[in-house]
Amino acid sequence: MNDKRLDFLLAIHNHQPVGNFRSVFEKAFQDCYRPFFEEFRKHIGLKLTVHFSGPLWEYMQAEERVCWNLIRELVDKGRVELLGGGFYEPVLSVIPEEDRQGQLEMMSRFLEKEFGTRPKGAWLTERVWEPNLAKTLARAGIEYTLLDEEHFHYGGIADIHKIYITEDEGYGLKLFPIDKKLRYLVPFQKLNDVRAYLDSIRSQGGLAILGDDGEKFGLWPGTKKWVYEDGWLARFLDFLESEDIRTRTYSEVLEAYPPEGRVYLPPASYEEMMEWVLEPQDSEIFLKLKEQSPPQARRYLRGGFFREFFSKYQEANHLHKRMLFVSRRVRVKGDAEARTELYKSQCNDPYWHGVFGGLYLPHLREDAYAHLLGAERRLPRESGWQELDLDLDGQAEVMSQGEIFGLLLKPSSGGSLIELDYYPLSRNLTDVLSRRKESYHARKAAGSNDGKSIHEISKELPSGAERLFRYDWHRRASCLDHFLHPATTPENFRNIDYREQGDFVNQPYEFKISGTSLSLFRDGHVWMDGERVPLSVQKVVIPRDEEILFRYTIQNGSERTINIRFGSEWNFYQIPEEWDLGATDVRLVKGKVILEAQPRPEFWNFPLQTLSQSEQGYDIIHQGICLLSNWKITLPGRAIFSAEIRLREHRL
Amino acid sequence: MNDKRLDFLLAIHNHQPVGNFRSVFEKAFQDCYRPFFEEFRKHIGLKLTVHFSGPLWEYMQAEERVCWNLIRELVDKGRVELLGGGFYEPVLSVIPEEDRQGQLEMMSRFLEKEFGTRPKGAWLTERVWEPNLAKTLARAGIEYTLLDEEHFHYGGIADIHKIYITEDEGYGLKLFPIDKKLRYLVPFQKLNDVRAYLDSIRSQGGLAILGDDGEKFGLWPGTKKWVYEDGWLARFLDFLESEDIRTRTYSEVLEAYPPEGRVYLPPASYEEMMEWVLEPQDSEIFLKLKEQSPPQARRYLRGGFFREFFSKYQEANHLHKRMLFVSRRVRVKGDAEARTELYKSQCNDPYWHGVFGGLYLPHLREDAYAHLLGAERRLPRESGWQELDLDLDGQAEVMSQGEIFGLLLKPSSGGSLIELDYYPLSRNLTDVLSRRKESYHARKAAGSNDGKSIHEISKELPSGAERLFRYDWHRRASCLDHFLHPATTPENFRNIDYREQGDFVNQPYEFKISGTSLSLFRDGHVWMDGERVPLSVQKVVIPRDEEILFRYTIQNGSERTINIRFGSEWNFYQIPEEWDLGATDVRLVKGKVILEAQPRPEFWNFPLQTLSQSEQGYDIIHQGICLLSNWKITLPGRAIFSAEIRLREHRL
Repeated sequence: MNDKRLDFLLAIHNHQPVGNFRSVFEKAFQDCYRPFFEEFRKHIGLKLTVHFSGPLWEYMQAEERVCWNLIRELVDKGRVELLGGGFYEPVLSVIPEEDRQGQLEMMSRFLEKEFGTRPKGAWLTERVWEPNLAKTLARAGIEYTLLDEEHFHYGGIADIHKIYITEDEGYGLKLFPIDKKLRYLVPFQKLNDVRAYLDSIRSQGGLAILGDDGEKFGLWPGTKKWVYEDGWLARFLDFLESEDIRTRTYSEVLEAYPPEGRVYLPPASYEEMMEWVLEPQDSEIFLKLKEQSPPQARRYLRGGFFREFFSKYQEANHLHKRMLFVSRRVRVKGDAEARTELYKSQCNDPYWHGVFGGLYLPHLREDAYAHLLGAERRLPRESGWQELDLDLDGQAEVMSQGEIFGLLLKPSSGGSLIELDYYPLSRNLTDVLSRRKESYHARKAAGSNDGKSIHEISKELPSGAERLFRYDWHRRASCLDHFLHPATTPENFRNIDYREQGDFVNQPYEFKISGTSLSLFRDGHVWMDGERVPLSVQKVVIPRDEEILFRYTIQNGSERTINIRFGSEWNFYQIPEEWDLGATDVRLVKGKVILEAQPRPEFWNFPLQTLSQSEQGYDIIHQGICLLSNWKITLPGRAIFSAEIRLREHRL
Repeated sequence: MNDKRLDFLLAIHNHQPVGNFRSVFEKAFQDCYRPFFEEFRKHIGLKLTVHFSGPLWEYMQAEERVCWNLIRELVDKGRVELLGGGFYEPVLSVIPEEDRQGQLEMMSRFLEKEFGTRPKGAWLTERVWEPNLAKTLARAGIEYTLLDEEHFHYGGIADIHKIYITEDEGYGLKLFPIDKKLRYLVPFQKLNDVRAYLDSIRSQGGLAILGDDGEKFGLWPGTKKWVYEDGWLARFLDFLESEDIRTRTYSEVLEAYPPEGRVYLPPASYEEMMEWVLEPQDSEIFLKLKEQSPPQARRYLRGGFFREFFSKYQEANHLHKRMLFVSRRVRVKGDAEARTELYKSQCNDPYWHGVFGGLYLPHLREDAYAHLLGAERRLPRESGWQELDLDLDGQAEVMSQGEIFGLLLKPSSGGSLIELDYYPLSRNLTDVLSRRKESYHARKAAGSNDGKSIHEISKELPSGAERLFRYDWHRRASCLDHFLHPATTPENFRNIDYREQGDFVNQPYEFKISGTSLSLFRDGHVWMDGERVPLSVQKVVIPRDEEILFRYTIQNGSERTINIRFGSEWNFYQIPEEWDLGATDVRLVKGKVILEAQPRPEFWNFPLQTLSQSEQGYDIIHQGICLLSNWKITLPGRAIFSAEIRLREHRL
């Protein structure tokens, strides 16, 4: 045993997403944040570095004064150093630089005002790193951040028990590598194991550097009992006081030691994140490769990087590009309130999916859109149709934003409606999630969960999950044009147990704007008895003040008669209590918005549900309803079928 | 055979570094650029996309009017599309954003003025990509660039025969993947092989996309004969005209097809570059891993990224950080001329090393420093000592810039002098290269070079190369404090065949600035007969107008007598004709700068030479001279030895 004391740097990161349920905030403080700091306070020899994200600071300030005062006391005593970061916990690399600066400054000012000092360090959301963030953070007055040890391995750095420095455009930023082994030991393993590992760090003359989610201390499944009732935390803090260990804040250590060297690190996050971002089949290949490769391969074997979530999930991409669109306008024309709304919409959780719900949680997505639309309500609206490449795929979308409704259509993919906003409620009515394969869908195993890291918990799929394993072959957008065999049943449609007879659903439409109307048209085909028969679809979209008209004209392009079921598919983000089906219409948002069709259609519908993993296990989540307004039609040679769908606000 | 014509996109990138010998420019036009375009002109059905870097445009405009007019004619006829890029061919990711915009705009304006249109596409220097460059290029009005197929593999994209689009902060940029196989086929393989490969692309319905160095057509070893005299190029262009192929410019193709999809690509360059950046031992491991891994591992197995050259080569890092320092000042206080000097210094070649000389070529480094110092000469000089972390390693350097001399010292590493500038000649006198292990030093094989890609040429090391395999254990900086055994010979020192008795050379010194003098001191040790004896070194640096004093005070910290040889090591970038050794002094830069020491020392010296690879084979390069001003001293207990080294300008 070495006679030198080991410097132990402990950083705790606490976060709840913007828009999470109030009950979750309450429970988090009660079961986790408050008891943690109450226990910590008793161990007067210890120091800690702490990050709360903005949503928690705002909630704590208003509702949790006990915890607030406790933190203040610990800061005043010099026992706690507070970390900055983007106020609403955005992934910095995927928001515009101006917003990065705005969010970082918002947090620094908040901490300065409430606790007396601007932060020197920043917690980097999900440790999502790109090399140019050194400049971003340094410009914001931040001197250091914490990254995962993976980042350093990729940069060829073996010793993760040291401080490093990186550089971008001449801006320097100091970096602390988070020890992954410590992350798995605390608070899940026995103190003897922790001691043995710390001894090994001490014997190499290194620093013990840990930064991790505070929710591990009481909020993750099983941890409340383990950490508090069974006394793990008290014993651990006793241990830190009694042993040859000196807990220090990150800033104290920075003043004590110069960086070990300058490093350049490629984009990365923690190891699991870089696997989650991969498509299921890729993730399988990657995991196998890692298993089969020698340890020295670790540096070179890399999964995906965060931005690829926008390739993996089109809904995450949509939210992201919509946010960028609003950001551009807020920066030019927005006031402080619009800016705050924008920043709230940038909270990272609904933009991705890993072991937590994230993107799969409708209430988080709903809230993100609510803030985006809230920001737009504070901006001058541009009238009429606008053509723009909103999602940056190199093809034009078409947008119309009125006082009541906002519309976004994608001609290049089915001439579909990819966003329908209802401004009076700041609600994106089409915010649903398509059902897609996830790598964990293939997994089936049982196990005990006591005191295990959430990453180690084996999970069992809920019974009946099989019926959810119907993956959508197209995006669950709206105004999608299906041509089905007349014998297709609602059950067939729901189960995706039918053959699409047309080539319209996700195929390119041409478009033309004339005055207030947008015309979308496609000369396509339907398959009839093994024959490809020409057929054209035209839909004209006419937004008026309180309603929107969708006028269909379908023309048989051949001399033969076409017998077919034509359906216009709409997917609405609605919980079951919000909508119902009338005799001739569909009432949405508790009757505030009504969809009518004529001639009188059949309305097929089914709930759109997904199966996703969460920290608890698996969740079956109601994403909304799928509605098919459909007509069985017979079209003689060259004949035309016309129909109309009308969406209107119904003032109650 | 498909009846559809294959779109063939050929882009040629021509570049010579700022500061390269005039003879190289002449030869390049004569053997390569001019004959290439003369041959191309004859094939009137063909189209081409072309990039010349700024140094070539400037040379061509002044000296090569035949070629200039030929390009103009081809542009006017719509047969050639010109590409933009950073004017002096900087690696964009490692220069400040303001300079990126300045260099891109400089090129766009140049092309607009001389050829009538601003470029739509940019050649990305060495295809060094980082995700935020999408914003950089789009802001500069650039719509597309070319990347290597590796970039796309890392992003999980298998089909490299398509156009893609990427996004950063809401800015879109279209991307063309360069086909590596085509890069190896053209102009090195038989037309039948080219034809077979193009047929395979055609059968998949893809685009054939090639972008590569123009120097492959006549300047690379053996290619002049192969490409022109043996007629490869004429046959190839005939083939492109006669076959079912349509050559198109990149912009034409962009107008014809929408992008295949949006992609997010991590930092990368071409495959070889990402190996070159690795340390020799890492490169070996990496290459073995790639060999042993299955093809689907390709996406996940990644070498280093460009910025790591600054970790690998401290001299590249020094140039880079020095450039960033000058850039900061030019942006605040510089005029247009200072800006042009800065931009010239950013030319990529001396910042890295791969198969071409780059960093190893003293004349390129000399020129980069000349432009940096040239920029500084146009800026107001700040007088006195400045403390700053110029190289961003988290520790302070100390700088003094006068009218004649500029000094940069690094207390944390031997209190060494890491830069000595002589402003009247805009010359960094200490710009040498330490000798380090390179992965190709281990290689030894012979082979024939006819018509082979430069990457396939096996090389033989020159005889006598072994004696260069002495790797330096410390940076070849100056004012380094050695303590040697009294019996050490100059030969021992030269061959690094001695034991360092002191702990000063690269160890931390403390420092203090008082008025015009800088004091550096270290309480260290010397090893005497197996015993560690305390000894302190103080050096006081006093810059005056036309001279600089270095005053040494060495004190024995023990009661015992110390017999030792003390030497102050200096490394100067001087070719043999520039310097000579007088009776009591060393005359540098043809006598313009004189180094004197007293008491009268012994001056040991040897040429500092490196062994590096180049496109021709191996080069033994004279990097400068190593000079050890040394004194055999006997220090009784507590005694002091004083010496002085004076550098002065000698006006002839």
